[in-house]
Amino acid sequence: MSATLLSGKALAERIRERARGGALSLTETGSRPTLAVVVATDDGSTLWYVRSIERAAGNAGIDCRIVHLGPDASEAALATVLEDLSAEPAVNGIILQTPLPPGVRTDALVGLIAPEKDVDGANPLSLGRLAVGQPAFAPATARAVVELLDHFDVPVAGRDVVVIGRSAVVGKPLSLLLLERDAAVTICHSRSGPLEKHTKAADVVVVAAGRAGLLTGSHLSPGAVVLDVGTNVLPDGSLVGDADADSVREVASALTPVPGGVGSVTTALLLLHTVEAAREQSASLVSG
Amino acid sequence: MSATLLSGKALAERIRERARGGALSLTETGSRPTLAVVVATDDGSTLWYVRSIERAAGNAGIDCRIVHLGPDASEAALATVLEDLSAEPAVNGIILQTPLPPGVRTDALVGLIAPEKDVDGANPLSLGRLAVGQPAFAPATARAVVELLDHFDVPVAGRDVVVIGRSAVVGKPLSLLLLERDAAVTICHSRSGPLEKHTKAADVVVVAAGRAGLLTGSHLSPGAVVLDVGTNVLPDGSLVGDADADSVREVASALTPVPGGVGSVTTALLLLHTVEAAREQSASLVSG
Repeated sequence: MSATLLSGKALAERIRERARGGALSLTETGSRPTLAVVVATDDGSTLWYVRSIERAAGNAGIDCRIVHLGPDASEAALATVLEDLSAEPAVNGIILQTPLPPGVRTDALVGLIAPEKDVDGANPLSLGRLAVGQPAFAPATARAVVELLDHFDVPVAGRDVVVIGRSAVVGKPLSLLLLERDAAVTICHSRSGPLEKHTKAADVVVVAAGRAGLLTGSHLSPGAVVLDVGTNVLPDGSLVGDADADSVREVASALTPVPGGVGSVTTALLLLHTVEAAREQSASLVSG
Repeated sequence: MSATLLSGKALAERIRERARGGALSLTETGSRPTLAVVVATDDGSTLWYVRSIERAAGNAGIDCRIVHLGPDASEAALATVLEDLSAEPAVNGIILQTPLPPGVRTDALVGLIAPEKDVDGANPLSLGRLAVGQPAFAPATARAVVELLDHFDVPVAGRDVVVIGRSAVVGKPLSLLLLERDAAVTICHSRSGPLEKHTKAADVVVVAAGRAGLLTGSHLSPGAVVLDVGTNVLPDGSLVGDADADSVREVASALTPVPGGVGSVTTALLLLHTVEAAREQSASLVSG
């Protein structure tokens, strides 16, 4: 038995198409969507990632403004920029790119991103609104997981979903999205004891722990569906997920690849969120 | 075998003592804590509950201001009151009591409670801050559960805790508090399939579904610890929890009674939160 590979590419392309269509309509009414990405690092792979967002935005008809404050930016300077972008009508979406300079408190800064422009769900208010069922942007990675489940018709209502990882950017918001879809959700993490105790009973396992090879086939029951959120760079430079793909594929019925799975959908969703934000903001300008 | 009853009374008394001690010190420095409770209903049991908070506050040396807007209060009037109380330096804690008049959107109102005065964790921002590990008040009921676990030395780190109920006032915030304490947390609800599938493997079960008798002994493994958050009024006027106490006591090692369990700790925590809020606000007045 060998698991089906759940590639994110077709879904990502479909989401980019939706973003492009939405951006075009908005541009025709005179309000071309704009995404601002605030950067304060010289880290090569981060800058590469930011350029890939910029390129994808351009292809979707979205203006992308990279605000690079340099690797020595102060918290106060970052705060001012985030406040200004939050207040500027021409900017629809804001991403604060990590890592930030040493000593800068990410926690303090993300709260300054206007919730209606918080396209990567970084502001705690966005997470709280998700929890109470109010409109809010989920972190793009968390939404990518549920969009992939929908795309491949993997039901979660009434089924057992195990989320490995309790981060505020993936594990927690994803759990909220899954609860909203009527799953029974179990959240495991590095201190919650043996994984297999939970994963053996799971219909769907989402692994988002940031540890290469953490989840193996022996943790699963035959037929489980595995979504791999991990992106770990090995010493040889190759990119792998948190699942040990070889052994997982022997037991699972389906697995998202890394790269080419959850990650490819994530960037597309940042664009779609920006268009959704722009549409909402343009509607509220008209109505109010 | 018959389960130990985990009464909340001794813990509630201890928490009230802490609140009283804190209120006294603050009063001596000229800033007696004040709790405001905003009410807009004529419902008898709600008014009875509000008076019980007022009485408990008085006994703890906390001023309690009941702001009663009547059962026909508009959303706009409630919003103005919440904004005024949030801005008023003499008010340290704010509770918006439900039920509210028909048509009034609770969601829109709770966001107006200043987070530093949100002593019952009703503002979505409080929930979001809890999720990311920033200082925030949890809903008093959710904190009451973890305080009871601590009080009776029930460990949760590395153990399996099942939370039945996914509400924004109990299930979700409680899950966050349990994750912070390193439990593996499973959230079940009315649409997540057979309860026993999860509860049979649980070390600790918290039931917060609002359905009398939902959890029975046959759902549990011997030795489980059960915390019952339910408060259901039967047709004969008696108050029961969500656990079927008779059958649960035959299987569980311990169970919180209803009444006299979680609920008695909850009101005490509202007082303690008010004192904590007052201390924080008085410290920030001095420092800034």
